[in-house]
Amino acid sequence: MYKTQLEKPDGRKLWLYGLAPLEHDAAPSPSPDPVVANPHLRWHPLRGEWVTYAAHRQGRPFLPPPDYNPLAPTTNHAAPTELPSGNYQVAVFENRFPSLAPHPEAAPTLEGIVTAKGTGNCEVIVFGQDSQTSLGQLSEAHIDLLLQVWADRTLELGAKKEIQYVLPFENRGVEVGVTLHHPHGQIYAYNFVPPVQAKALELSKAHYAQTGRNLGQDLVDLELSQNTRVFSQGPHSLAFVPAFARYPYESWIMPKRAVAFLSDLSSEERQDLARRLKDTLERLDALFSRPMPYLLTLNQAPTDGTEHPEWALRFEIYPALRTETKLKYLAGTELGAGMFANDTLPEVKALELREIKV
Amino acid sequence: MYKTQLEKPDGRKLWLYGLAPLEHDAAPSPSPDPVVANPHLRWHPLRGEWVTYAAHRQGRPFLPPPDYNPLAPTTNHAAPTELPSGNYQVAVFENRFPSLAPHPEAAPTLEGIVTAKGTGNCEVIVFGQDSQTSLGQLSEAHIDLLLQVWADRTLELGAKKEIQYVLPFENRGVEVGVTLHHPHGQIYAYNFVPPVQAKALELSKAHYAQTGRNLGQDLVDLELSQNTRVFSQGPHSLAFVPAFARYPYESWIMPKRAVAFLSDLSSEERQDLARRLKDTLERLDALFSRPMPYLLTLNQAPTDGTEHPEWALRFEIYPALRTETKLKYLAGTELGAGMFANDTLPEVKALELREIKV
Repeated sequence: MYKTQLEKPDGRKLWLYGLAPLEHDAAPSPSPDPVVANPHLRWHPLRGEWVTYAAHRQGRPFLPPPDYNPLAPTTNHAAPTELPSGNYQVAVFENRFPSLAPHPEAAPTLEGIVTAKGTGNCEVIVFGQDSQTSLGQLSEAHIDLLLQVWADRTLELGAKKEIQYVLPFENRGVEVGVTLHHPHGQIYAYNFVPPVQAKALELSKAHYAQTGRNLGQDLVDLELSQNTRVFSQGPHSLAFVPAFARYPYESWIMPKRAVAFLSDLSSEERQDLARRLKDTLERLDALFSRPMPYLLTLNQAPTDGTEHPEWALRFEIYPALRTETKLKYLAGTELGAGMFANDTLPEVKALELREIKV
Repeated sequence: MYKTQLEKPDGRKLWLYGLAPLEHDAAPSPSPDPVVANPHLRWHPLRGEWVTYAAHRQGRPFLPPPDYNPLAPTTNHAAPTELPSGNYQVAVFENRFPSLAPHPEAAPTLEGIVTAKGTGNCEVIVFGQDSQTSLGQLSEAHIDLLLQVWADRTLELGAKKEIQYVLPFENRGVEVGVTLHHPHGQIYAYNFVPPVQAKALELSKAHYAQTGRNLGQDLVDLELSQNTRVFSQGPHSLAFVPAFARYPYESWIMPKRAVAFLSDLSSEERQDLARRLKDTLERLDALFSRPMPYLLTLNQAPTDGTEHPEWALRFEIYPALRTETKLKYLAGTELGAGMFANDTLPEVKALELREIKV
């Protein structure tokens, strides 16, 4: 992997990654104005979670006309984008409209309300230069490079002493609110372990303390031995609909050997994981012969400076369609109570995904 | 309030409520076939929450043609709906496609996975006979009756020894996945306190133990004394955007005197709460001169047979629009990590709602 770090005219950082030595123009920015990002957090006293406020974000682009794509390489220097021309495959840059920022000012004081600075990082990751493709359509080598980029960003962000958790994710599809169609994801770095991962940590640690075993490894071993919900596997990885899926076609992708971070995998393991990710996304797109809208998250261990033998890295994909034409909406019981209702059985949906020829 | 209980041909129960003595036809059902509802729960080991599976639900109606409305009173006996003709204002019946059922069979045994029966109740509540109206357009007296119906259903469902929590909610608008446009909501009764309310209970109890005060009452008193986020109030109730709002126009409606249940309110307090609910929904509809899609939940205390001096009843409304044309989507940080990102400040949004003339 080749990597170079650049600085944009507005002060933001940009990283280019490639499979060959990199050649590229200078780093552009859509606007020369420095980014004024001053997010703050407020504590929700009845949910026990932080909410972040970044009032500048309302102006971010939404389905811009096709002639301007901020994630394409800059070709017209009168209308610079976020990226330079060059031979890179993957690019990462600091978000111009971040929900969390490295050095925000002091949070406002609000009588009776607990506030804090919105410290953290929000990065945009561009999966490739072609705006017409998608993550699942990239080559295996390209996706393997992407896994290395996610590993690299996790190491760099996680090494900051204030960062406790790094979450790479992709929202894909108009149906889930995507504003830019060029294949890309985001990386959030939090200065706390966020609620979903804090709960997973607590439960994984409890299982480890009680049994001496890794909860995710137990899950992988169970799925492999049962083989009723696995829809794809290779020598080092598997993809399955978890037995407790909350979305009809919820898909988890895991290495067969539980690890805490992408950077813990061998090249062979990582390459097989890349293959599994491609294979899974191809199946989801083939399922209804249309691009599947989804949320994808990469769940690695907290970057809190301690070892995490209890953690098992996994990709969780939440596809938004439950049939060819029907979306799975989150309603009262999901958003209001935290109990998901699934109309389908994971064993049945896994079989559908398994039978797809990719 | 007048009330009568009926039984449908398929065995489901139906309750009619009115402001005058009730006259009505016999209880109909769209199908004479008995409901086969056998939901089961599976434990999500990494989120620490139950997921319910009810595989029959996939077939429920979605935007049916305008000539058949299952929530309208039956006029054509060859095509019966869920409701009879009569002079009632509000009706409640057991859902034909429930996610939880009173007497499900044993849950399937799944190697390595914790399962349980999907015990509970799922009821549909029809707010009125007019399919063209909406909750906020009903008269104050009608909404006050509705509050009494929610109180009545909470008492009846909560009195069952297996029911620990009763959640009335309304999903409104195609944008949030509503399948039937006739104004209606749902009531879920759980045999456990669901995650969102369990967390609120834990935090409210901790505050009560530490300070001797009710957390919700403190919040009400804070909002009234600050008066920067309150957009509507009467002698016994207020509506405000909470300081820690997760949605741009998130609106909470609370009685000024914290209570655990609707049935704890005096008639005067309840009537003022009904007025506040109407006023709030009218403001939300007026905001962008279009019906505001939203999720509304009524958060009362657990029905676990103990006193709840720490709990404060509240309506929480999550409007789906953040501008006239843009929806607030839940993406990676919200669904994948549990940290909401809000592009707006509650104090600003509250002012917008306050300035609306209703």
